[in-house]
Amino acid sequence: MTLALSLGQRGQGRTWPNPAVGCVIVKEGRIIGRGWTQPGGRPHAETQALAQAGQGAYGATAYVTLEPCAHHGQTPPCAEALITAGVARVVVALTDPDPRVSGKGLTMLRDAGIAITTEVCAARARRDLLGFLLRNEVGRPALTLKLAASFDGRIATGSGESQWITGPEARRLVHAMRASHDAVMVGGGTARKDDPSLTVRDMGISHQPARVVISRRLDLPLMGKLARTASDTPVILCCGHDADKTLMRTWTDLGATLLPCAATAGQLDATDVMHQLASHGLTRVFCEGGGALAASLIEADLVDHLIGFTAGVVIGAEGRPGIGALGIANLSQAPRFDLRETRTVGADTLHVWDRL
Amino acid sequence: MTLALSLGQRGQGRTWPNPAVGCVIVKEGRIIGRGWTQPGGRPHAETQALAQAGQGAYGATAYVTLEPCAHHGQTPPCAEALITAGVARVVVALTDPDPRVSGKGLTMLRDAGIAITTEVCAARARRDLLGFLLRNEVGRPALTLKLAASFDGRIATGSGESQWITGPEARRLVHAMRASHDAVMVGGGTARKDDPSLTVRDMGISHQPARVVISRRLDLPLMGKLARTASDTPVILCCGHDADKTLMRTWTDLGATLLPCAATAGQLDATDVMHQLASHGLTRVFCEGGGALAASLIEADLVDHLIGFTAGVVIGAEGRPGIGALGIANLSQAPRFDLRETRTVGADTLHVWDRL
Repeated sequence: MTLALSLGQRGQGRTWPNPAVGCVIVKEGRIIGRGWTQPGGRPHAETQALAQAGQGAYGATAYVTLEPCAHHGQTPPCAEALITAGVARVVVALTDPDPRVSGKGLTMLRDAGIAITTEVCAARARRDLLGFLLRNEVGRPALTLKLAASFDGRIATGSGESQWITGPEARRLVHAMRASHDAVMVGGGTARKDDPSLTVRDMGISHQPARVVISRRLDLPLMGKLARTASDTPVILCCGHDADKTLMRTWTDLGATLLPCAATAGQLDATDVMHQLASHGLTRVFCEGGGALAASLIEADLVDHLIGFTAGVVIGAEGRPGIGALGIANLSQAPRFDLRETRTVGADTLHVWDRL
Repeated sequence: MTLALSLGQRGQGRTWPNPAVGCVIVKEGRIIGRGWTQPGGRPHAETQALAQAGQGAYGATAYVTLEPCAHHGQTPPCAEALITAGVARVVVALTDPDPRVSGKGLTMLRDAGIAITTEVCAARARRDLLGFLLRNEVGRPALTLKLAASFDGRIATGSGESQWITGPEARRLVHAMRASHDAVMVGGGTARKDDPSLTVRDMGISHQPARVVISRRLDLPLMGKLARTASDTPVILCCGHDADKTLMRTWTDLGATLLPCAATAGQLDATDVMHQLASHGLTRVFCEGGGALAASLIEADLVDHLIGFTAGVVIGAEGRPGIGALGIANLSQAPRFDLRETRTVGADTLHVWDRL
C-alpha cells in the first residue's frame, strides 16, 4: 500500500478535479502491475495497473489507495474492470466520499466474490487525497500555506525586498511543491509588489499548475508577468462582485478566468474564495502569501498544512511579517499545528506541519 | 580528539574564567586516561587524565583540546606534568591565545623531546572554546541568542502571553543549554514582565549559571524571583553609570553584583556590556531575549550562535517580535548565519546557527 500511495502522489496536481490514486497488483509475492491516475484524471490507476498485469491479474491482489469507482462516467467503472480481470482480493486505503461511489464500488466487488480489506494506511491516504476529500465533504480544496522567512519570521525587509531570503535549494524545492498542487495562489499585494510568474521552472516538467490571485478590485498590473502569460498557463482571479467591469473584461480577454466571490467588511471572504475555487474543480491549492492573505486564511481556519523555510538571516522588526494580524489575545486561541517533518534544505531549514 | 572534545564539553559553564578543556591519554590503542577541567577551573584536564593513567602514561599519546599551560599559576604547569609522566606524543586541537601560554607550552614539550601535532579538529575546538578565546582575543564572552517562537516568529501574544509557546521537551532542552553556559541573560523588560528565575531546573545538577539582567535604570521588581534569590545564585546587573544610587545599594544588599556600563543614546551600549561581563570573568553567555536586547546585540554584531525553537502555533502580526527593530533596509545588510543543525524536539523544531 505504501508503494500504491507513492505512485498516487505522482499524479498530484495533474488530475483535478479527480483524485490522484495509486494502484499496485501483486501475485505470489511479485508486483505485476503498477498504475496511477494519469494527467487530466484518466485513465484511472486501476486501469493502468491491470493493463500492465494482463492475464496475470487473475487470482492476484490489488492494492488501491481509494475505493474503486462503480459508476459509468467517461470511463467504465474500475470495480467492473477488477472483476473482469479476475482479481481475487482488493485492499483499499480509503472509501470514496463521492456519493456516486461511496460503498458501491466495494459492494460490487464483494458481490463478485472478491475479498475486501479496507482502511489500510488510511491516515496517510487521507492526507494525500485530502483535497479531493475536502472538496466532496465541505466544498473546498486542501490548502497548504508556505512561508519562506528569516530566523525572526520576516518575509521581506521593511522596503519589501524579499529576493532572496532562502537559498537556491529551498527555492527549487518550492518549485517541486508547486508542481504537486493544482494551483499556486497569492494575494493581490504580492502580485503587485513582486510581479511573480508563479510557474514551475527548471524541474523538467511540461505541466504547470494554475495561478490564482486574490484581488477584490482586480487592481493588478496589466503589463505584468501574469497578464502576459495568462493565455499560456491558466490564471484564475478571485475578485469581488463589485470589481470594475472594464477590468473584468480586460482580464477575460487576456485569457484569465474570473471567479467573483463574496466580500465582508471590504475584504473578500476567504471561505467563499475557497468554495469558488473548489467549484472550479481545484482540489490542492498552494498559497505563497502575502501576510494579509495568509492571515485571512488562518483566521477562517482554512489552512491544512503549513510549510516553513527558515533562513539564517536576521531582518528585524521593521521587516514584513509572514502572517498578518489575527486578533489573537490569548495563546489558547492561537491555532496549533502538528509537526510532520523537519530537515535541512541547502543552507535553510524546512519544517512541515499539519492541522491538528 | 573527538572524545577529548566531548569530555571538554562536560565542564562548559562551570570553569569560567578558565577554558573547559578535555584530555584523553591513549597507549597501544587503549584509552588509559580521561579528564576534563573540573568545576571552578581546576584541576586541569591533563592532570585528571594523567592521574587516571598513572605509570601507564609513560610512552603514551595525550590528546588535549587546548595547548597545555606552561606557567605556574595556582597549579604547576600541565606541560611539566606531561613531561614528568613521560608522555611520548601530544596532539593538540588549538594553541592557547593567553599570552602567558601561547606557544610556550608547546615549546616546553618539544624541548623535552615530545612529538607534537597541532590543529587537529581545530574548528570544532574553536567553537567549543569560543568564549575563552574571544575573552582573550577581543575582551568579550561568546554569545548565544535563543528564541522560542511561533511558526510566524512571535515570542508572545500582543498582550505579552508567552507561556507556553514551545512544549516541555524544548523547555527542558533550554535548561540543559543554560547549564552549559556561564550565565543566562535577559533584558530588563523581560525581567519585569515574566519575573523569571533563570535557573536550571529538573536537570539533576547542583551548579547554577549566573543570572544577568541588562537594565540601565535598575527599575526591576524588588520583590521578584531574582531579587529574592540573589543571595543564593549569582545575579549580575548591568546598569547605567547614572542608575539610582539607592537602587544600586538595595540590589547590592540583596546580594547582586552591579556592573555599570556605558550608555549611548539613552540605551546601554551592548559592546560595553559584553566587555564588562568578560572583565567579570564570563566566557559563555546565553541570552533569552527580549526583542529589544536581542536587536541591540545583533546590531552590534555580538551574536555568535543563534538557537531557534519553532512551535506549530500561529500568533499573527500583533504578537511580539523575537528580535526588535534593526534599521535594515536591504537584505544585503542583514546579518547571515550558517546552519549547524536542525531537528525535532518534542512537538517543536530546533535550528542552530553559527556566525558566518
